[in-house]
Amino acid sequence: MTFIKQLAAAWQKNNSLLCVGLDPDPAKFPAHLKGRDDAIFEFCAAIVDATADLVCSFKPQIAYFAARRAEDQLEALIAHIHEKHPGIPVILDSKRGDIGSTAEQYAVEAFERYQADAVTVNPYMGRDSVDPYLAYPDKGVILLCRTSNPGGSDLQFLDVGGEKLYERVAHLAAHDWNTSGQISLVVGATFPAEIARVRAIVGDVPLLVPGIGAQGGDIEATVKAGRTPNGTGLMINSSRAILYAGKDEEFAAAARQVALETRDAINQYR
Amino acid sequence: MTFIKQLAAAWQKNNSLLCVGLDPDPAKFPAHLKGRDDAIFEFCAAIVDATADLVCSFKPQIAYFAARRAEDQLEALIAHIHEKHPGIPVILDSKRGDIGSTAEQYAVEAFERYQADAVTVNPYMGRDSVDPYLAYPDKGVILLCRTSNPGGSDLQFLDVGGEKLYERVAHLAAHDWNTSGQISLVVGATFPAEIARVRAIVGDVPLLVPGIGAQGGDIEATVKAGRTPNGTGLMINSSRAILYAGKDEEFAAAARQVALETRDAINQYR
Repeated sequence: MTFIKQLAAAWQKNNSLLCVGLDPDPAKFPAHLKGRDDAIFEFCAAIVDATADLVCSFKPQIAYFAARRAEDQLEALIAHIHEKHPGIPVILDSKRGDIGSTAEQYAVEAFERYQADAVTVNPYMGRDSVDPYLAYPDKGVILLCRTSNPGGSDLQFLDVGGEKLYERVAHLAAHDWNTSGQISLVVGATFPAEIARVRAIVGDVPLLVPGIGAQGGDIEATVKAGRTPNGTGLMINSSRAILYAGKDEEFAAAARQVALETRDAINQYR
Repeated sequence: MTFIKQLAAAWQKNNSLLCVGLDPDPAKFPAHLKGRDDAIFEFCAAIVDATADLVCSFKPQIAYFAARRAEDQLEALIAHIHEKHPGIPVILDSKRGDIGSTAEQYAVEAFERYQADAVTVNPYMGRDSVDPYLAYPDKGVILLCRTSNPGGSDLQFLDVGGEKLYERVAHLAAHDWNTSGQISLVVGATFPAEIARVRAIVGDVPLLVPGIGAQGGDIEATVKAGRTPNGTGLMINSSRAILYAGKDEEFAAAARQVALETRDAINQYR
């Protein structure tokens, strides 16, 4: 099944637009996990198992694994999600971007090594840096468009002839590059007016929206700006607010509670 | 010693602007290495040892290692370069780009785990996505500006108000963001006129120039467009043309021969 169909099924089955971001920082782990060789896997798998019926996707951030030489735990985590929670798509958040021959290697990394269902990709190098990912017909490619960080405006907000650069990226990605329907876009929750602009440009293309929770984005404004007519179209990501909701052995239950509240807060505005 | 000083010393000591890119593709390895567990390390280390007196830097491309679960061989390779060829800086070509908290993790990956001297970074997410790398005062940050691939024009060549996006990146990077002097820029050899534009904007900031060799960039035009008044300022990268110059047990000697010819061809126009 394609990523887009898997996502649509998960939206419906779990009645959820929530994506839980897996950004494991061992310094914030509960005490009983600290020092264990497999702490990153154990922490993330517990979060996954506690929230899998509340989400439309999981999004591991590869930087947190790579900084700690924990690629094997990332492989094990994604395999765990596929095995224990089939039907919940996994987005590898790696924001790769390189010339075609190198992008082919990154596509192998994301889709063959890690078995991700979708991958985030940076559009700065243009279409031929994106095509190698699209060569995997069942996989999703989620292009950065308007990012949630303050510096996102430095380039993305430049006027490129009557529209902003992020709007041009939305046009190119959704219309010129998306011949196979595999593309989604990243638009930060910190800029709801721009979510609405992107939604107007891209039709029903799914949007991955980081920035609620720790980064301060507003749920009501995000959902109202980004939902499609049938009340879906969004993967609203929360990472830190869920992962570190609790500090002790009950951390997974605390994470579930915040995920539940976040899912329901989102659903209130669909 | 800072990356920039190390680079200046290597330019002088080896009388070379050549950077050898390490993009190991096991399908192209000589037969005697195929099937060995450490083939990637052995291949790259042999290339390094055969060319270290002819280069100003080495640039391993992390995608080729990540696609084959060979992060340990990348760590060993960079350690080998530092131990056997001290003074030759290592550029980790990973083109990362993410929000600040994630960029901190990628900086740990590049500078603490891999012990690289510099890292390539994508500017699309703006200044706060670059700052975490600059927090390592001895390290270099090489920002994508005008990339060598055809699709590079899709965004980088857009007019952003009297100048192209890549020119704006050059201005921002070299003047606004480069308060500590750690920044260099990537400008492809396939666009010599644009190398000249970037050189005019950035003064003596070093330029990493991929695209000669397999990608077809012209050496004479590249050097004349990009050299600084003292005949340096460039890291001219060649990967495939050097790595795969020979096909048998003499591959390292064949690589040395091509590296020597490339270095001398570059020097002809300094």
